[in-house]
Amino acid sequence: MTFDVETLARDILAGKRRALSRAITLVESTRADHREQAIALLERLTPHAGNSIRIGITGVPGAGKSTFIEAAGLHILERGHKLAVLAVDPSSALSGGSILGDKTRMEELSRRREAFIRPSPAGKTLGGVTRRTRETMLLCEAAGFDVVIVETVGVGQSETAVADMTDMFLLLLLPGGGDDLQGIKRGIMELADLVLVNKADGDLSATANHSASDYIHALRLLHPRTRNWQVPVKTCSALEQRGIAEAWDVVTRYRETLTASGELLQRRAQQAKSWMWTETAESLLSALRSDQQVARLIPQLERAVTAGIKPPTVAAAELLDAFLQNNRRPLD
Amino acid sequence: MTFDVETLARDILAGKRRALSRAITLVESTRADHREQAIALLERLTPHAGNSIRIGITGVPGAGKSTFIEAAGLHILERGHKLAVLAVDPSSALSGGSILGDKTRMEELSRRREAFIRPSPAGKTLGGVTRRTRETMLLCEAAGFDVVIVETVGVGQSETAVADMTDMFLLLLLPGGGDDLQGIKRGIMELADLVLVNKADGDLSATANHSASDYIHALRLLHPRTRNWQVPVKTCSALEQRGIAEAWDVVTRYRETLTASGELLQRRAQQAKSWMWTETAESLLSALRSDQQVARLIPQLERAVTAGIKPPTVAAAELLDAFLQNNRRPLD
Repeated sequence: MTFDVETLARDILAGKRRALSRAITLVESTRADHREQAIALLERLTPHAGNSIRIGITGVPGAGKSTFIEAAGLHILERGHKLAVLAVDPSSALSGGSILGDKTRMEELSRRREAFIRPSPAGKTLGGVTRRTRETMLLCEAAGFDVVIVETVGVGQSETAVADMTDMFLLLLLPGGGDDLQGIKRGIMELADLVLVNKADGDLSATANHSASDYIHALRLLHPRTRNWQVPVKTCSALEQRGIAEAWDVVTRYRETLTASGELLQRRAQQAKSWMWTETAESLLSALRSDQQVARLIPQLERAVTAGIKPPTVAAAELLDAFLQNNRRPLD
Repeated sequence: MTFDVETLARDILAGKRRALSRAITLVESTRADHREQAIALLERLTPHAGNSIRIGITGVPGAGKSTFIEAAGLHILERGHKLAVLAVDPSSALSGGSILGDKTRMEELSRRREAFIRPSPAGKTLGGVTRRTRETMLLCEAAGFDVVIVETVGVGQSETAVADMTDMFLLLLLPGGGDDLQGIKRGIMELADLVLVNKADGDLSATANHSASDYIHALRLLHPRTRNWQVPVKTCSALEQRGIAEAWDVVTRYRETLTASGELLQRRAQQAKSWMWTETAESLLSALRSDQQVARLIPQLERAVTAGIKPPTVAAAELLDAFLQNNRRPLD
């Protein structure tokens, strides 16, 4: 596949879906020449990106994430927005499958022209997957999508990664109590800017209200992620489409509050800067790992370190010496 | 100051306190020749380290951490152990002061020969401070200290860093309720293997019990850090020395449970390996940052990235190019 970067850029800015899809494929490619073109494209488009509200969504298993995104997505389109739905799923490389891969999960939404749904890129590391999703987000924004939802399956550190690339983080929970609640992963509660107890319908209505009170109580023990923002806990039913408009009102109010305080801009700037440094650190480390001489050292050093024979700092110094000797630009 | 590494090693293994102090000074030194000697010393001693239970302690402000460590420390000595108390305080470089710097905070404990108290190393980065504390921990273990307490003031990510270098993490709280509890930092609750509500004495006894129930309730919403371990919440009074023996019994039971399941060894091996990689990544990044050509690029790239003009991945690629020689292998 070949790409004409300038044509691609113009077509994306004109909102052409096919160009956007091709650009995402380019960004996801691991070929060196593709990467160079991807960089040129991103350089060209980034000044036109950023004009969206970026929403991260995670949920406990069974919370009905797809149904919720379908219902919320249709509401968002009704309000006149253009919506992109992306995903971060570092397990998709292993499982072969991928969240959002099956578009029938969001049947109605996927048929709408104002919505763009893209499955998680495959990747062996969370860093690789999130890098591509971040870049895809920029492309979608340049194509005029003003609401971006990034869904995560909650493998490893993926929620933290998604919270770090979005403006607002939404946690979807189930009605239930006591031991049922143990399904929430460590630290997830504290990333949330909005907690929604879904499936508040039929027999579960009362339980949902009870759970919401429990979560309000639990949240009082935690520092909110965002200054000047008391994390709301609401109930909703994606199935019966109740509570969806109210949830979207919270998103709108959140955005207004953080825009007014300047916090949204600040957070974006901070995210961009720390993304640059994370990316630099990861690329350095991957350059080190793929150096042949270093690669020969790694197994024996890891063995010595885990056996408690060699101090980790010493092993690290040996890895660094081996790498820099081979790869360092000559000193000027 | 000069050091004879072999003599130092032998003296430390013989349990000589002066040698241990000198070795810690060596490990904390930033001089290149000292670092080389420190590495030799650590290589020599690491096979003799590891025979301790490593306990991390943090607390909300006013929870009475020093009084607690003094009371618990004396109890630990009574049980026939040798105790080292270290600290991680990345703010000490800025404030000039240091936790544990003032030994009068633990007056009785600091006079005991079976106890060794060392203030936090100074350092500008948390990474630097924790590296030295980890290395100091190895030295203390080689010197025969079989209980190591690592205290943290809770600045930045220091609790996570301390939890990552210890076997068990203890959170000290105050009696109180409602909004008072907001003082707990994000994510700290979830690091805890044992929660102690201190100052359960006098008028506060009833409040302390009430708080303990609140925390038990809150903890039910969180995944425990350790498999097969339900995090206990206990009350104690360090001042009146009540609940201290019970807390130590929990530590003992914890250690037995995790030793039996093999989890303790596993966790240590995992910690050592991830320490090696963190150290490698940090050293690489600091080599990059201190490269003259790179240093000239950083300000303009950070400006472009935070302004949303340049994509962070592209800026990272430029930093890497400047640092590594041009014929490096392309990164994926």
